[in-house]
Amino acid sequence: MKVGDTHYRSIWRDEGTGAVRIIDQRWLPHDFPVVTLEALEDFATAIREMWVRGAPLIGATAAYGVACEMARDPSDASLARAYDVLHETRPTAINLRWALNEMRSALGRLPEDQRAEAAFAKAARICDEDVETNRLIGVHGLEIIKEIAARKGPGEPVNILTHCNAGWLATVDWGTATSPMYHAMEAGIPIHVWVDETRPRNQGAQLTAWEMNGAGIPHHLIVDNAGGHLMQHGQVDMVIVGTDRTTASGDVCNKIGTYLKALAAKDNGVPFYVALPSSTVDWTVSDGVAEIPIEERDGREVTHIYGRDEEGRARFVQISPDGTPGDNPAFDVTPARLVTGLITERGVADASREGLLALFPERRETA
Amino acid sequence: MKVGDTHYRSIWRDEGTGAVRIIDQRWLPHDFPVVTLEALEDFATAIREMWVRGAPLIGATAAYGVACEMARDPSDASLARAYDVLHETRPTAINLRWALNEMRSALGRLPEDQRAEAAFAKAARICDEDVETNRLIGVHGLEIIKEIAARKGPGEPVNILTHCNAGWLATVDWGTATSPMYHAMEAGIPIHVWVDETRPRNQGAQLTAWEMNGAGIPHHLIVDNAGGHLMQHGQVDMVIVGTDRTTASGDVCNKIGTYLKALAAKDNGVPFYVALPSSTVDWTVSDGVAEIPIEERDGREVTHIYGRDEEGRARFVQISPDGTPGDNPAFDVTPARLVTGLITERGVADASREGLLALFPERRETA
Repeated sequence: MKVGDTHYRSIWRDEGTGAVRIIDQRWLPHDFPVVTLEALEDFATAIREMWVRGAPLIGATAAYGVACEMARDPSDASLARAYDVLHETRPTAINLRWALNEMRSALGRLPEDQRAEAAFAKAARICDEDVETNRLIGVHGLEIIKEIAARKGPGEPVNILTHCNAGWLATVDWGTATSPMYHAMEAGIPIHVWVDETRPRNQGAQLTAWEMNGAGIPHHLIVDNAGGHLMQHGQVDMVIVGTDRTTASGDVCNKIGTYLKALAAKDNGVPFYVALPSSTVDWTVSDGVAEIPIEERDGREVTHIYGRDEEGRARFVQISPDGTPGDNPAFDVTPARLVTGLITERGVADASREGLLALFPERRETA
Repeated sequence: MKVGDTHYRSIWRDEGTGAVRIIDQRWLPHDFPVVTLEALEDFATAIREMWVRGAPLIGATAAYGVACEMARDPSDASLARAYDVLHETRPTAINLRWALNEMRSALGRLPEDQRAEAAFAKAARICDEDVETNRLIGVHGLEIIKEIAARKGPGEPVNILTHCNAGWLATVDWGTATSPMYHAMEAGIPIHVWVDETRPRNQGAQLTAWEMNGAGIPHHLIVDNAGGHLMQHGQVDMVIVGTDRTTASGDVCNKIGTYLKALAAKDNGVPFYVALPSSTVDWTVSDGVAEIPIEERDGREVTHIYGRDEEGRARFVQISPDGTPGDNPAFDVTPARLVTGLITERGVADASREGLLALFPERRETA
């Protein structure tokens, strides 16, 4: 998507040098630093410390991490080490494992001297496919927005609530949850977005709001507490969120707090959609609450907040008293029974094993 | 409760001068400024701008506001003006209206020269009664904690989740939701409190966490998004919150986000209690979602956060991009069907008209 007049992806290779570049997203919206990742440890740090985040972008970054490591040392041992180092950076998003498996199976049988080139080509393909996948998610999601718009008065916007950032910054481009929004804008369908700030790291306030501003989409920032009240009063027409891992039975693991919004949507008859590339489906897992590992992050993310002070300087401030520890589970699981539909690159599936298999019949044996 | 070695109420008269003092709670936990309120407009500002907050304390502050105004001008016109100025400061908490009605009916028929003294006496009585009411809420709530503790392993703490600050800072002393916790501590029953930070104004992070530290109660600060996940994993034994207005049918209007926690509690079989003095019951209202006015506060409370920077200086930081407006409803309504029980000064009532009337039979005609 565009930043000012320039089209960006969230990860790319420099045309001249071939260096891998990302946007260090920790400092948005107050700063927009583009950084170069070179060594394997750079990539691991960027994922672990959330310079990049979002399940699809984590996968793409890991793919380029393997490629850079292959350029340095294309041995089997190096490939195995790159896999392990990158795999352990974050436990919840399944795309990380998916992308690493893709890379390993593409490279493992090649002679060493062909691995670097093949790895960069494969990483680029993963990125291009992600862009196309997300475009298709937008095309399918647009149909749902159109149906809701048709039931509203002329010119009345479709009110969409979203949580966290499942935007183009979380993918290579388009985003998952945001792709239907961008497509609605292009189709001239009026929408208005309620942006959950998404504590503790405020990806909604920092990233989704920034994306909405960039695309000129009318929106309001709300605290994570507000969505239920807005739904009780008819101010939300639909919810669209992303997911970091979806089980074969349609349970959805996404940013902490998603489950609360799904409960409120159910209680108020508001449709609750999850947008995902099929690479976020973990066909080996069925019961999301019991089986998906939930990342526990540093309690300081709860007790401290990043923002810009009155003089324009970026700062962390402590919001709680000394002596109060923070507890920081990063994701929760929304059971399939609360999900209206899964918007995938192949269309909208029921959040159930049968619903997913109807769209992805080739998985019938593994699921 | 104690701050260091000194026992404080949240509002009091100076023993020497008779001046009305409060803690300006906006700057907790980083600063503890005690300020004097004198003119009517001081009291109105203190309530409107949340130097004091919490339904019972708002009522007590309004009572002293009337008293100070009676000392300046005890005329009927002055009494009526004081009522109006204070009444319009905040729309949701019912105790404000309740306390002003108490003051007006106590003073209206008195000769003007007796009004000031009677007003201060009445305000003091409202405060003393609030303390006793909250003590009794703690006694009744303690019984519920004891029952849960009896089902746990020896020494295993009862995990209590609370939202916002319904602590001693929100009342004159003891608090409503916190009173059972303080009584459990005194009774030697191990508890652990999950403190919701309570965006946008962070009363949990700033006030409840500060109270827990002061009382030595083990606790963790969590983001408002986390409670559902903790409940899914058996880490919450009960929820206790306060309320700003309770309908005659048991609907509970409390800080924005309470409804989401009640939904999660219901979904996971976690008992959800609301602690309240009966003065927060609005016997004239039945359907909370349809009838209770919800205060809309400044969007800057959403886009900006108060904290302490690395150098120890208190600051507001902006968390969102320029151009993104905030939307800021301050309360939501939790339907009675999600409430396990109402802990009042007379005991625990079912969240229903019949439940409330069984404890408050004198209201049978008005409700």
